[in-house]
Amino acid sequence: LGLLPKTSPQTALLDIASYFNPADEVSGDYYDYFLLGQDKIGIVLADVSGHGASAALLMTLVKGILHANAQHFQSTERVLAELNVTLGQIIPKDMFVTMIFLVFDLQKRALRYSNAGHSPLLMYHSQSQKTQMVELRGPALSLSKLSVYREKEFPLNQGDLFLVYTDGITEAFNEQAQMFEEARLIQAVEDVVSEPAKKVIANVNSALRAFMGKARQADDVAMIAVKVL
Amino acid sequence: LGLLPKTSPQTALLDIASYFNPADEVSGDYYDYFLLGQDKIGIVLADVSGHGASAALLMTLVKGILHANAQHFQSTERVLAELNVTLGQIIPKDMFVTMIFLVFDLQKRALRYSNAGHSPLLMYHSQSQKTQMVELRGPALSLSKLSVYREKEFPLNQGDLFLVYTDGITEAFNEQAQMFEEARLIQAVEDVVSEPAKKVIANVNSALRAFMGKARQADDVAMIAVKVL
Repeated sequence: LGLLPKTSPQTALLDIASYFNPADEVSGDYYDYFLLGQDKIGIVLADVSGHGASAALLMTLVKGILHANAQHFQSTERVLAELNVTLGQIIPKDMFVTMIFLVFDLQKRALRYSNAGHSPLLMYHSQSQKTQMVELRGPALSLSKLSVYREKEFPLNQGDLFLVYTDGITEAFNEQAQMFEEARLIQAVEDVVSEPAKKVIANVNSALRAFMGKARQADDVAMIAVKVL
Repeated sequence: LGLLPKTSPQTALLDIASYFNPADEVSGDYYDYFLLGQDKIGIVLADVSGHGASAALLMTLVKGILHANAQHFQSTERVLAELNVTLGQIIPKDMFVTMIFLVFDLQKRALRYSNAGHSPLLMYHSQSQKTQMVELRGPALSLSKLSVYREKEFPLNQGDLFLVYTDGITEAFNEQAQMFEEARLIQAVEDVVSEPAKKVIANVNSALRAFMGKARQADDVAMIAVKVL
């Protein structure tokens, strides 16, 4: 029973690429794709507390609840709200999960997005040629059953690019104890933003490696890029 | 993150007791209780294919999907049908899960029950003083997305007793290679059917041990007894 998908889904509208590099003995990152009906693709990236066998179980539990909820509810905000409540009933108080959840509606050509305490969505808007971090505050999952989540919807236009990533990237340190941070991530995306998703991922990765130098990778590195064709 | 509950829920209407004894190095049994709203208790007993870490992950996945579905759907048949489809989208073709799922409606004083390839529900009906195996055929989960499940509903009357169990009990062998079978299970229940749930469990267990003698326990033994007060 594999926890992580082996391939990215292929559609005529979206070019999707991903990268996952767990740190030694630490693996709390979960990413996944799933088809919702005939014309929607869900993409999730999450970071669960703990590591090892306990993190693997928590990830699997999150996967199960998320898949079920995503089938039942259209709204990404509702999916996270239900996941938050169900998870809170099951897992210990000291465990939590950050998650970014995206649903690409291929027919409507729209993206719905919600965020539970995870790093913001990076969005490159092709018409304005601007890159932004889409902040959408919501608490990590399972902290409180009263947590409220929000949702944003964007139209999908040719050339738009979306990147989800874990803080193993933005909070990676170099040998001088500086952090990679959002600005370098944005730059690494913008440098190759007209290239395929795979190339964008590769460029972020090489910028990160160049920055880190010989510094040790302390956390998992995971990212998914989605480009509108 | 514990997979199995540490205690049984307590209510004024139901006396619930459980027993779980995994065989060496094999643990594919999953049982769980959960509150559904203010006045319903879900009880599940399942047997997943495989063992070890793989079975633990599959159990956790099942737990996640089941908890989510049980919150959303009233009908036990619908909960299993949705679980079947979602599970089939995620897990490999050679994995499957048998499951018996019960919802006790404390306000309505009724039990709803569905079965996916698991051993039938044992029901002792206090008014008629009869014990029966409630057959309710439905395929194991994840075998086919076209699988259909059924549901039965029973009123809850004082003195009624329900037992769910795994085939580690009915298919346990003694030293003469005979199986314990349903008849001995029914007898062990009937002998103490006016006693508390805990005593019923204990009596089934001692009848099983006496029957097995020195034969090795080949499979997990799990059972839950629910008595109406």
